[in-house]
Amino acid sequence: SHKGNEMEKLKKYVSVKDEDQFYHQGAVELLVFNFLLILTILTIWLFKKHRFRFLHETGGAMLYGLVMGLIIQYAAKASDAESGTVYECEKLKSGQSTLFINITNQVYEYQYKREISHHNVNGHQGNAMLQKMTFDPSIFFNILLPPIIFHAGYSLKKRHFFRNLGSILTYAFLGTAISCIIIALIMYGFVKAMVHTGQLKEWDFHFTDCLFFGSLMSATDPVTVLAIFHELHVDIDLYTLLFGESVLNDAVAIVLTYSISIYSPKENPNTFDAAAFFQSVGNFLGIFAGSFAMGSSYAIVTALISFTLCEFPMLETGLFFLLSWSAFLSAEAAGLTGIVAVLFCGVTQAHYTYNNLSPDSKMRTKQLFEFMNFLAENVIFCYMGLALFTFQNHIFNPLFIFGAFVAVFVARACNIYPLTFLLNLGRKQKIARNFQHMMMFSGLRGAIAFALAIRDTESQPKQMMFTTALLIVLFTVWVFGGGTTPMLTWLQIRLVLASNPDKNTTKAESAWLFRIWYSFDHKYLKPILTHAGPPLTTTLPEWCNPVARLLTSPSAYGDQLKDDDTDYIINNDELTENYESSAHMPVWDRTA
Amino acid sequence: SHKGNEMEKLKKYVSVKDEDQFYHQGAVELLVFNFLLILTILTIWLFKKHRFRFLHETGGAMLYGLVMGLIIQYAAKASDAESGTVYECEKLKSGQSTLFINITNQVYEYQYKREISHHNVNGHQGNAMLQKMTFDPSIFFNILLPPIIFHAGYSLKKRHFFRNLGSILTYAFLGTAISCIIIALIMYGFVKAMVHTGQLKEWDFHFTDCLFFGSLMSATDPVTVLAIFHELHVDIDLYTLLFGESVLNDAVAIVLTYSISIYSPKENPNTFDAAAFFQSVGNFLGIFAGSFAMGSSYAIVTALISFTLCEFPMLETGLFFLLSWSAFLSAEAAGLTGIVAVLFCGVTQAHYTYNNLSPDSKMRTKQLFEFMNFLAENVIFCYMGLALFTFQNHIFNPLFIFGAFVAVFVARACNIYPLTFLLNLGRKQKIARNFQHMMMFSGLRGAIAFALAIRDTESQPKQMMFTTALLIVLFTVWVFGGGTTPMLTWLQIRLVLASNPDKNTTKAESAWLFRIWYSFDHKYLKPILTHAGPPLTTTLPEWCNPVARLLTSPSAYGDQLKDDDTDYIINNDELTENYESSAHMPVWDRTA
Repeated sequence: SHKGNEMEKLKKYVSVKDEDQFYHQGAVELLVFNFLLILTILTIWLFKKHRFRFLHETGGAMLYGLVMGLIIQYAAKASDAESGTVYECEKLKSGQSTLFINITNQVYEYQYKREISHHNVNGHQGNAMLQKMTFDPSIFFNILLPPIIFHAGYSLKKRHFFRNLGSILTYAFLGTAISCIIIALIMYGFVKAMVHTGQLKEWDFHFTDCLFFGSLMSATDPVTVLAIFHELHVDIDLYTLLFGESVLNDAVAIVLTYSISIYSPKENPNTFDAAAFFQSVGNFLGIFAGSFAMGSSYAIVTALISFTLCEFPMLETGLFFLLSWSAFLSAEAAGLTGIVAVLFCGVTQAHYTYNNLSPDSKMRTKQLFEFMNFLAENVIFCYMGLALFTFQNHIFNPLFIFGAFVAVFVARACNIYPLTFLLNLGRKQKIARNFQHMMMFSGLRGAIAFALAIRDTESQPKQMMFTTALLIVLFTVWVFGGGTTPMLTWLQIRLVLASNPDKNTTKAESAWLFRIWYSFDHKYLKPILTHAGPPLTTTLPEWCNPVARLLTSPSAYGDQLKDDDTDYIINNDELTENYESSAHMPVWDRTA
Repeated sequence: SHKGNEMEKLKKYVSVKDEDQFYHQGAVELLVFNFLLILTILTIWLFKKHRFRFLHETGGAMLYGLVMGLIIQYAAKASDAESGTVYECEKLKSGQSTLFINITNQVYEYQYKREISHHNVNGHQGNAMLQKMTFDPSIFFNILLPPIIFHAGYSLKKRHFFRNLGSILTYAFLGTAISCIIIALIMYGFVKAMVHTGQLKEWDFHFTDCLFFGSLMSATDPVTVLAIFHELHVDIDLYTLLFGESVLNDAVAIVLTYSISIYSPKENPNTFDAAAFFQSVGNFLGIFAGSFAMGSSYAIVTALISFTLCEFPMLETGLFFLLSWSAFLSAEAAGLTGIVAVLFCGVTQAHYTYNNLSPDSKMRTKQLFEFMNFLAENVIFCYMGLALFTFQNHIFNPLFIFGAFVAVFVARACNIYPLTFLLNLGRKQKIARNFQHMMMFSGLRGAIAFALAIRDTESQPKQMMFTTALLIVLFTVWVFGGGTTPMLTWLQIRLVLASNPDKNTTKAESAWLFRIWYSFDHKYLKPILTHAGPPLTTTLPEWCNPVARLLTSPSAYGDQLKDDDTDYIINNDELTENYESSAHMPVWDRTA
């Protein structure tokens, strides 16, 4: 018993050491990322100081990631491949999330990670260091993207956004659909050609795969372009059109990709199955609407709670953060799309909750999400650079890659020019030719396309798509991102001076959509959800007075239209200008 | 081939669905935590508004966690235990981080999670929901604790901290050692008694286990008490003594626990092995010193970089965050203690880097870490409440628990009273009797004790320790935390008014230690690392002038001692008061 005792003891120490190694496991890899990010920040600081605008921070991050990937690839070549042996355990049941395995009388717990196609098994057995540098794809969707998307929604310039709402919705929904289909059709042509030349077995690549590729490549991400626009104070309407389009288009592309991935015709996957098609369309609409509802309802709850909470900025910020995150999690838990939910949550939070926050919390929440966005964005772009060399299962197919470049370019053109032509028929302030070219030029692909592509890299077609998507992202971010400033000069797009906020620009759209929404929002939603706006007692019919009095914030009576975020919302005099004839004007005169 | 094709297709869809389930897996559990935190925030807001001080937010978080744990425990009782089957796979090698398992022709990747003792296997097979609500213990050490500890270091009131440095170091090092040994001795007595009464087999519980328990129970965490001190503006010296002690004592306890856990006598573990003992002492000193060096050197690098970076607050904040995190990761990667590194990194950042930051970044960094601290703290306390019911392997041993309560109490007394007596011999401003009682009373146990205890819960003694530690945390946080305000009244401890910062209190300690450090820091470190302080050209000997000119910030010449954080550092007139006779005074007169 004494000997056994000692053995036990010894084994315990060994196991403690093992465990410690597991604890420290992630430290080195995270350190590599930290190091890359620090380098990026220092470089960007240098560039910003000297006003070099040909490399944005995301481009820099990608460049450093690329170099680091190259180093790891070649430095760690002769590493152990020990960890890749495949064990035959036919008696196990598949699909278990946790395995308890008894190895020489010691039970170990293993956690499910993923399923691996047979032809990839060898790839996975490669370099241990490369393997460790590979994130779990779900990290992109659950950790890195949500803050980026929320921040996008939260910093939407609503004043101009709502003025251009119709155009933005057209580009985002119709444009993305057009882009998806055009890319799919062109890629299908190239795939057929590849089958002809024997580069591809036919059954590998269906039209649905092409649609999948089309939908993921339709997510534009002009973060580089927008950063330069912001810095140079480029025309605000162009900025809004591009920003609004890219934000909403992400949501559309994500849901579209998901809907296509679960499109499953009962018969031959190459034939068109109407029932399955309509089910996919239904899925798309259901998921989109559900996510929208989930996101905005959490934001409305936040607005209602923050009504009363403005004394303690820390509690307020905490609540704001937790409720926004809950929108994401609830959507995920309900089988909807968390990222879409978090986007609309951000938009709604900015529109209502922001008005109720204390000045301190306003700044805190803005800075917090700005910071999270900054970090997450740079991590993703670093990782993209890294992935070009560290990802183990790249399939570089020149014809496919060439086809994809052509497809992306053509699809962007078929999206922007025809839709702008149609929109200009209805718009009061037309979208000028040079603006159209700039929008065409700003069709960069970025984080979303990458995240959608890396989500599934098990089959060979998916690997080919991933490689191609990665190359398109690298190319567009560097070339188009870097070329933004020369392009602006070349297209002679006017720069608005920072000191001159364009107060007296004419309304952009024939604003019936905007007008209906604005009136409803201003009369009913704003008074209920914020301290701003006219008291409900004046906007609701008289018989609603008891309810109205209950719902109106006491401060709404005293102050006159106290809208805190003039930066965001149409300001007072502009409102008067636009709605001189509208019914509720006299009300303000009365309260004044 | 066509049939196989379809099968393939079908399988793909099934696998996509499976994968999606894995994606959503964490959402529900995170949602439960979010919900608990939101509840906590709302409750605390209510309490703060009505100035109830008997329940701090951490106590509230714990309470809600407890209730939620109870609900989960009883609601999810009849859940599936399917996932807990143990598979015999003798041919596998142990210690692999990744398993590739071929189950009916499909390869799955599984990731190592942990080792499980045989007698726990049944426990782990229990309720799936409870299992999911259980964090990986490494999350505490790698994600939740670092921001808390960094924030503690970053918000140390240095002015008073350095004045009481000797006392704080005495409490932290000597006091923690005393506390550890006393607890170990008392527990050893109780363990012997338990063996006598047949409650325990002797070989289960060595003296080293008692020491392990003693060290982890020596980490005090008076977060509740300090929050109330802060709110009521209790005497700043008492605040500093308690805060400084608790911060440093965490570092000491963590390293001590680690050193004890790797203490391995070659012979019988019950006998004293001098060589192994001195190795443990060496380990302790080495790890502590190494972590200290790692943390402070990263902070110094940050200070040097931030010297030049103050135009872009976002880049500055990002760099600050990444370098501080790198301190943690580097220490972990080097086999040191990340948490200790991050603590000293925080202290050094506050002392040097903070002075170089732009006003915007000063606020951003403070608010960022304040926010992270707030969230992490509440998550840990929520989890503690939850763990009382959801943790599967509790061992409630009344005698052991009773013994632990006695031991913790006695050890705190043996720490505070004798050490204070000794310190008062040397201090100019004595630590009063009522202060001593308050310090005795403030010996709460919290996050660190819990995190140390949960790190290893595989053997039965460790499980008994975990259960006991948890109960002590719950008890002390609620009872002592809640009793702080009455205790302050009862002990008649004076409250300092917020508007009266105690400028003219006399020096607390006979300040030789402080004087040496201050002089060195002020003359050499501050001028090199910040914009503040006298120019190096005046403090260094004349022959060093070329080097000095190089190292001095240009702004140091023009301005006179521009120390931005008067809140943190001894201010100018106090300095004059204390060091009228010191050598460098005339220098200022010259520069003035």
